Amino acid sequence: MTFEVLILGCGAATPTSRHNPSSQLVNIHDKLFLVDCGEGTQMELRRNKVKFQKIQHIFISHLHGDHYLGLLGLISSMHLLGRKSTLHLYGPAELKELVELNLRVSQTYLDYPLVYHITDEKRQIKLFEDKSLEVHSFPLKHRIPCTGFLFMEKQKQHKIHKDIIVEYRLSPSQIIQLKKGENVETNRGILTVEQACILAEKPKSYAYCSDTMYWERLVDFISGIDLIYHESTFLNSEKERAKQTYHSTAEQAAKMAALLGAKKLILGHYSSRYTDLQPFIEQAKPFFENVILADEGMVVAL
Amino acid sequence: MTFEVLILGCGAATPTSRHNPSSQLVNIHDKLFLVDCGEGTQMELRRNKVKFQKIQHIFISHLHGDHYLGLLGLISSMHLLGRKSTLHLYGPAELKELVELNLRVSQTYLDYPLVYHITDEKRQIKLFEDKSLEVHSFPLKHRIPCTGFLFMEKQKQHKIHKDIIVEYRLSPSQIIQLKKGENVETNRGILTVEQACILAEKPKSYAYCSDTMYWERLVDFISGIDLIYHESTFLNSEKERAKQTYHSTAEQAAKMAALLGAKKLILGHYSSRYTDLQPFIEQAKPFFENVILADEGMVVAL
Repeated sequence: MTFEVLILGCGAATPTSRHNPSSQLVNIHDKLFLVDCGEGTQMELRRNKVKFQKIQHIFISHLHGDHYLGLLGLISSMHLLGRKSTLHLYGPAELKELVELNLRVSQTYLDYPLVYHITDEKRQIKLFEDKSLEVHSFPLKHRIPCTGFLFMEKQKQHKIHKDIIVEYRLSPSQIIQLKKGENVETNRGILTVEQACILAEKPKSYAYCSDTMYWERLVDFISGIDLIYHESTFLNSEKERAKQTYHSTAEQAAKMAALLGAKKLILGHYSSRYTDLQPFIEQAKPFFENVILADEGMVVAL
Repeated sequence: MTFEVLILGCGAATPTSRHNPSSQLVNIHDKLFLVDCGEGTQMELRRNKVKFQKIQHIFISHLHGDHYLGLLGLISSMHLLGRKSTLHLYGPAELKELVELNLRVSQTYLDYPLVYHITDEKRQIKLFEDKSLEVHSFPLKHRIPCTGFLFMEKQKQHKIHKDIIVEYRLSPSQIIQLKKGENVETNRGILTVEQACILAEKPKSYAYCSDTMYWERLVDFISGIDLIYHESTFLNSEKERAKQTYHSTAEQAAKMAALLGAKKLILGHYSSRYTDLQPFIEQAKPFFENVILADEGMVVAL
């Protein structure tokens, strides 16, 4: 099943001709989730040939312009191109005020419903759930209220071998237990899930963490994830500046990925002062081996 | 003296991978004026290596997103890159509300002053004047309040031949008259400006007209201009749609340029439905010969 992240923008606050401001498209089982929407996101979606009317859910981490200024144009383009289906927006409370003011001054009356869902920078919230996945927001530590987003597949049921059912004369409740991953007691002793089932794939998870300073409390919200995008605005030479501006260095991002037990780390949100990004990898690797640099157009599959 | 227009975006409401939304940089005597500021303008300024901190004046025609959504990011980048000097913003009254809300939610406290100047879609207003030029807003006819902008050099004084002063024993007041372009009466009869002076260059003018339907009342505001940018969102096949949406066709733009006695016409604000733009020229030429198609990165010098 598809589970991939397309990087649309991985630059920090001032966009350059090299990097767009923050945005990513998360595709899980062919559902498209947009995460942050910096200026130029709709153009970058086009460049990557994404059918953006298929996006039903847009998540905004916080209200610094480089994370939301592309949203207003995207909402307008969706309207002009004939959208009728509901668009769900997730973000801080003032996001609604921003969107509504832009619609009012441009006298735009959308042909599709917007539904707002408010995030909370103080606690984790389950924002979305369907039969195969969940999306949560969780606190980050930034200069203004900011949350990350966690995308988690649900554990699928294991498939039980039919001959085992006959052989062990399993009851319906025993079958349900095994499918859920619980061993059962039979006349012939303990029957383990491994003996009885073709095991379902382990559910995959992805956490988006931009913008934030190094903050160990993240372990309360997103430990044991497969993939993490953690901002690394600065290199070690700007460690003090990182602290002052509530951002992270590449080394801190790597330490955080290690602390969280993540399997893979994507670095991004690079300050425009850096043109050579190789030092980000060099400063991260000693603390977390499986690290890559985000780049526009890059797809990371889980 | 420099007088040129750099096209930063000439697409209509939905940006494409081919065309940005509206924006232009007008450079007059090395003063930089930004006219409209659609999404992505700051990136396009960088691509064209414009030192955007030199921009002191930004003019917004109206509050449809494709004409102002890049302003908020540009204001922020100017701040982050250390701007201290005043930025003047010209546009509809709600522009201030939009900018201030974005600054408030992002908790951005600018290190430089913003000064707002309100335009009026009902009448012409002189927005800016210095010793060598004037900028006016003037009404356009669009679905929401919208103005164009007129950039005019002032008539420079003629240079009087020194030997003529002696020969005709000209008084100081006669000299002033001649420099201003008025013939004077002397003991030896009428002395014409042409006889007495090296004539100053004729002042040049440029009018920006986007967005608007075909509207003959424009002659009251901007007749006799050198260069005009007139929107041509549609071709003749969409003439009805042009009327409904308060936009123009290429033919209408050409007829307007002719009616206004302009010397040269730039077409732009193309609907994203068109990929081949040659028909815009073909439909305009029969009504106005000196017509060109706007394109990103193009510079038109007067």
